[in-house]
Amino acid sequence: MIETRGFAVHGTDAKFSPFNFERRDVGPNDILIDIEYCGICHSDIHQVKDEWHDMMPANYPMVPGHEIVGRVTKVGVGVTKFKEGDIAGIGCFVDSCRECPSCTTGNEHYCFKQAAFTYNGTEMDRETPTYGGYSKHYVIDENYAVKVNAEGDLSGVAPLLCAGITTYSPLKKFNVGPGQKVGVVGLGGLGHMAVKIAKAMGADVTVFSTSPGKEADAQKLGASGFIISRDAEAMTAAAGTFNFIIDTVSADHDVNPYIAALGIGGVLAFVGMPGSPNTIHQASLIMGNKVLAGSLIGGIPETQEMLDFCAKHGVTADVELISPDRIEEAYDRTVKSDVRYRFVIDMKNA
Amino acid sequence: MIETRGFAVHGTDAKFSPFNFERRDVGPNDILIDIEYCGICHSDIHQVKDEWHDMMPANYPMVPGHEIVGRVTKVGVGVTKFKEGDIAGIGCFVDSCRECPSCTTGNEHYCFKQAAFTYNGTEMDRETPTYGGYSKHYVIDENYAVKVNAEGDLSGVAPLLCAGITTYSPLKKFNVGPGQKVGVVGLGGLGHMAVKIAKAMGADVTVFSTSPGKEADAQKLGASGFIISRDAEAMTAAAGTFNFIIDTVSADHDVNPYIAALGIGGVLAFVGMPGSPNTIHQASLIMGNKVLAGSLIGGIPETQEMLDFCAKHGVTADVELISPDRIEEAYDRTVKSDVRYRFVIDMKNA
Repeated sequence: MIETRGFAVHGTDAKFSPFNFERRDVGPNDILIDIEYCGICHSDIHQVKDEWHDMMPANYPMVPGHEIVGRVTKVGVGVTKFKEGDIAGIGCFVDSCRECPSCTTGNEHYCFKQAAFTYNGTEMDRETPTYGGYSKHYVIDENYAVKVNAEGDLSGVAPLLCAGITTYSPLKKFNVGPGQKVGVVGLGGLGHMAVKIAKAMGADVTVFSTSPGKEADAQKLGASGFIISRDAEAMTAAAGTFNFIIDTVSADHDVNPYIAALGIGGVLAFVGMPGSPNTIHQASLIMGNKVLAGSLIGGIPETQEMLDFCAKHGVTADVELISPDRIEEAYDRTVKSDVRYRFVIDMKNA
Repeated sequence: MIETRGFAVHGTDAKFSPFNFERRDVGPNDILIDIEYCGICHSDIHQVKDEWHDMMPANYPMVPGHEIVGRVTKVGVGVTKFKEGDIAGIGCFVDSCRECPSCTTGNEHYCFKQAAFTYNGTEMDRETPTYGGYSKHYVIDENYAVKVNAEGDLSGVAPLLCAGITTYSPLKKFNVGPGQKVGVVGLGGLGHMAVKIAKAMGADVTVFSTSPGKEADAQKLGASGFIISRDAEAMTAAAGTFNFIIDTVSADHDVNPYIAALGIGGVLAFVGMPGSPNTIHQASLIMGNKVLAGSLIGGIPETQEMLDFCAKHGVTADVELISPDRIEEAYDRTVKSDVRYRFVIDMKNA
């Protein structure tokens, strides 16, 4: 076994402390990654505090983190995709059944037997707990890691492994591209990636936000339009004009104004999961040939495609780099949306 | 002007009586159609009784009917698509602006200036009232009529002009075909067409119905499966198994069991418009990469494509042919779902 060190919580109080544990030895198809950066995703906070108890109850001690980049320092004898010194990424899952219709079509995140989540889960043996990227090392099957071809500073690449793929996947599925008007609801960790990726795909991007103070940022990120979503007049003026809108907001909100903002044949994709449902008339979809779609991260092939796309277009996340002793502060600020736009933990120097 | 005779109502009492009126003379791009058959669509009943007052208020006298087939008996000097003796069809609209992004892409039904509806509307001059297919003749621009290549009895072709295209369009848009499991919710006028068309596309079809008595019919129409939608156990067993479900029901109902019945990446398309909205959690879409779609009839090019598809595969509606003096009886029975599966008025012998 491989000794490593991470930062864990032991209960819902979300107090982090150093935690020594073991990773498995590097098997024939495994790679060992020295983790350099790990992003802080809002879902880390939900799980640490056991706020998603019904969906995925907290297992303590919990080492969160599923936006991971690092350097490959050892490869198993059967490994072909990586060599020592490569940069690798790990996202939200580290294994799956490999046999079901989802797994065999590159949609491992929708594995019929449920994928092995990167942390707060178990390996496919359903016994061995998984610990995440707030740690120094990860051992993973090479088929569940992705290659990072980026040069230079990697801190902005880490969030691509969750926030990047979560927004890329629906933009890609619905063929966003030049000549299209795209809306991004919410300018947070997910939203700021959606703006950058949609812009890189050639679309004309408008941000819908409740925060007037984010207009300048939206422009810097590549948006040409900015609409205060509480401004009923502005929302009415926007009705019928969008080809595609991605809704990244997890707080409860009425999605009907965004359905109205779609033009004929438009698509509203949800990647945020509010606790409360919405009230939707079928007629609001029928009268405009409109589509509502849900999307959850992405599979391994598409995650690789997204990383390559981002490398080609110079897209990374805007990050605030912190040392591990500031995780609790980062959590508090993330909850208050006081981050532009992702905290990333510097594990390289931890 | 061309003298013709139809059957009209003069108020919400839905009492029909013969009605003499005039169609315009055949212009350079017009064709004159001697109507042979006209289907009775449930939307005729809603409009006759002014039940859709807010959406499209009733204008009396009203001659309903937008599922029309007949013989071309005169063509304008500029007409190229039709010649005398051809069989032509007319659906839900008879003109549109021809210039907007919808019209120029063959989606005239979503005309930005609103298409001219076949009845209970006006021509694009927004003055001349339109009268529908419960009549002996129609004069229409050739670009808004479709060619019917069917042989023999045409009575089963008439309902294709609304019920056929309404179900064909979403089945086509979402690439229904061999190897796919397709659900049809509701076995009425729309539903029975959906079963036949999905089957002709090569899919394996299951009917969801509240009426156990319709199982034998479902099989005759081509369905291999039949699920009583009120049977919670059967619905639970069906969860996660469908690629595509088309919901044809206009009565209020909970659509969440159908969302649950979709497999990963599945699509639930709505073509019925219940008065009450549904309560939908974004998570129910996100956790399965699912899609909700609304669809309204179809444009002229797709309506032609549908007619050609149905002719090739021998698909027509199952109809009960009536004389015009039985329209009121047919309305009563349609409201009670006592028809298998479409009333069609014999205008040829009227």
